Amino acid sequence: MFEEIFENVRQKYPLIHNITNYVTVNDCANMLLACGGSPIMADELEDAVEITAICGGLNINIGTLNRRTIPAMFAAGKRANELGHPVVLDPVGAGASTLRTETALGLLKEVKFAVIRGNISEIKTLALGSGTTKGVDADAADRVTEENMEGAVALAKDFSQRTGAVIAVTGAIDIVTDGERAFCIRNGRPEMSAITGTGCQLSALTAAFVTANPDQPLEAAAAAVCAMGLCGEIAYQRLTELDGNSSYRNYIIDAMYRLTPAELERGAKYEVR
Amino acid sequence: MFEEIFENVRQKYPLIHNITNYVTVNDCANMLLACGGSPIMADELEDAVEITAICGGLNINIGTLNRRTIPAMFAAGKRANELGHPVVLDPVGAGASTLRTETALGLLKEVKFAVIRGNISEIKTLALGSGTTKGVDADAADRVTEENMEGAVALAKDFSQRTGAVIAVTGAIDIVTDGERAFCIRNGRPEMSAITGTGCQLSALTAAFVTANPDQPLEAAAAAVCAMGLCGEIAYQRLTELDGNSSYRNYIIDAMYRLTPAELERGAKYEVR
Amino acid sequence: MFEEIFENVRQKYPLIHNITNYVTVNDCANMLLACGGSPIMADELEDAVEITAICGGLNINIGTLNRRTIPAMFAAGKRANELGHPVVLDPVGAGASTLRTETALGLLKEVKFAVIRGNISEIKTLALGSGTTKGVDADAADRVTEENMEGAVALAKDFSQRTGAVIAVTGAIDIVTDGERAFCIRNGRPEMSAITGTGCQLSALTAAFVTANPDQPLEAAAAAVCAMGLCGEIAYQRLTELDGNSSYRNYIIDAMYRLTPAELERGAKYEVR
Repeated sequence: MFEEIFENVRQKYPLIHNITNYVTVNDCANMLLACGGSPIMADELEDAVEITAICGGLNINIGTLNRRTIPAMFAAGKRANELGHPVVLDPVGAGASTLRTETALGLLKEVKFAVIRGNISEIKTLALGSGTTKGVDADAADRVTEENMEGAVALAKDFSQRTGAVIAVTGAIDIVTDGERAFCIRNGRPEMSAITGTGCQLSALTAAFVTANPDQPLEAAAAAVCAMGLCGEIAYQRLTELDGNSSYRNYIIDAMYRLTPAELERGAKYEVR
Repeated sequence: MFEEIFENVRQKYPLIHNITNYVTVNDCANMLLACGGSPIMADELEDAVEITAICGGLNINIGTLNRRTIPAMFAAGKRANELGHPVVLDPVGAGASTLRTETALGLLKEVKFAVIRGNISEIKTLALGSGTTKGVDADAADRVTEENMEGAVALAKDFSQRTGAVIAVTGAIDIVTDGERAFCIRNGRPEMSAITGTGCQLSALTAAFVTANPDQPLEAAAAAVCAMGLCGEIAYQRLTELDGNSSYRNYIIDAMYRLTPAELERGAKYEVR
Repeated sequence: MFEEIFENVRQKYPLIHNITNYVTVNDCANMLLACGGSPIMADELEDAVEITAICGGLNINIGTLNRRTIPAMFAAGKRANELGHPVVLDPVGAGASTLRTETALGLLKEVKFAVIRGNISEIKTLALGSGTTKGVDADAADRVTEENMEGAVALAKDFSQRTGAVIAVTGAIDIVTDGERAFCIRNGRPEMSAITGTGCQLSALTAAFVTANPDQPLEAAAAAVCAMGLCGEIAYQRLTELDGNSSYRNYIIDAMYRLTPAELERGAKYEVR
């Protein structure tokens, strides 16, 4: 299944509009190119709306949000909805500040998202109005483990049902659900958290996968999460004793560039609950 | 000829002011350093004008343009003109949105450019008021091939005569012309298009080359285009079966850092029409 | 001494808020992660103030400053002061433009800095109201050498006494002083200046070191400067004849990721004056 989904990304070359933070934007662009998509970035209100219209999908990431770009997020999101383009939300730092939490909640009210991808603290903040976001990383107290996974799956399913979006909670174990079924994914390496923006890259990637597979948002989002984690595993094998997080970042993007649909099919580690 | 031009860049260490997008800005800075130049970035109106004055050349790139930075582009461009500094325009996404097209056309009216560098869709948009820009990449229908090259050269020459700028149309085959002569350049690798910002980097590089060779803008721009393509070829040789677009990006900048003027002279592949 | 200081960074995982330029922000984030810290970036006024409060330290870098982010710098700096969080200032390009110089001087008046880190031209501009900043690099006329080091140390000590901040003047020889003692540091490689943002990365690193060692700002800042230079040396050893400034950038961050506190202790090259 994931083979065909990834094949569609490579065949359709989806053009993805990203309104995203300036910290990890370059990596998001190269990750989109690596998977077979194409990136464009525009965050000025009128430009963003028009660029959204020529793209196939939209990725909204609220890291480094500001008064100028927030209206662009809302307007581009609504335009994408009108056009039937899938929209992905990455609520970076929701729970860490009022502006981020309120912007994310406001977007949830006015824009219909195909996928919401965040760490468990961000998702809890949006789903429950709580969560202890520590900066841009999930708080240790929130982390999904084998022990608390049932509860996390239930939380994600409930949030999915309420929003109509596929929810992707990523961390050591990833949960991707459409409210009915949940993919519990065990790809990835803990060392990926020492690279800035692997989450942002995954959100951009998810937008490409969902855009190329509009009828299967759950499977497409799950495939993107597996692909990112698998590339983290492949790249990890390549690390020498001199390599650190900067080379690891490059190798993960490289791995996505080289990854074949068949390799994704074979390497994906998940169960459906 | 290209040897001396590149030698001048290495000797004169040109300081280049870049008003550019936040997607590829880091790569532009490192590419400028790699070629022997020095980068500075400022995009707030008054700061941009003053920084322009201490630099040797200006590179205006309209990717991620916004209401705050657009006036800085106009003001810095005019200041550079007053000071006799060469100005390069990279009309990223012209044709893809009204704001981009109008900003680029407005800049053409109010600022005299030494070089305009874009893909064929962007150049057609500015030259003809048409062109089918697909995001930030040239549209397939527009691409320069051996078959339609005559027409593309004529278009570029005509646009150069009307603007007074050297026109650099880059793609599989690159055309660089001052309205009289046209360098048709065949350096480069198709895989370079899988890296975000190789065009942006080339525009920054072109600014350095033209600034260090103010009396030969045509040859300097052609040398920059050949140098970028040659580095793409050199870096490609270095790729292992594990490397993808992220390492390729690094290797191209590395190759520029290592490239000697004599190697550029030997490796440049062009004909003059 | 440096061993324990670095150990504290690795143990305490300091969360650092960075209001910084968009040119080198990604490298700053990865450098912070490499050293054992954690980065977050926010530059919209209200968001910046709130994010500052959840962090342990603040790093203010005025490269690509603008009318929107300048008030965020002031407000976040004051909030950090109220909370007793260390604040680092990187006055990128002070002396190169009025806006940069005045912003840096204004910040010095209204915010108490734990550390001010800049090149000699930037520091001279702030300390003496003069200095011949050439873009974002120190002017050759200002450079610290064995011959003029006494004078540079005296200048830095005096500036430290007047501001109450540890002053870190970095270049071929680095000077770090609290007004009484001065660490004169000889780690590093001249090739580091061919990478954009090694100074910015060092400022972010310094914020992490000082935040994890609040009672020893002088030693912590000196340790950060030694660590950065040492990583430049380690990464240099790794360069092949194909590598240039882009790979060197990656290798330096990699080296920080791999560096142990004991290696820093052994590799630090300094004398105290």
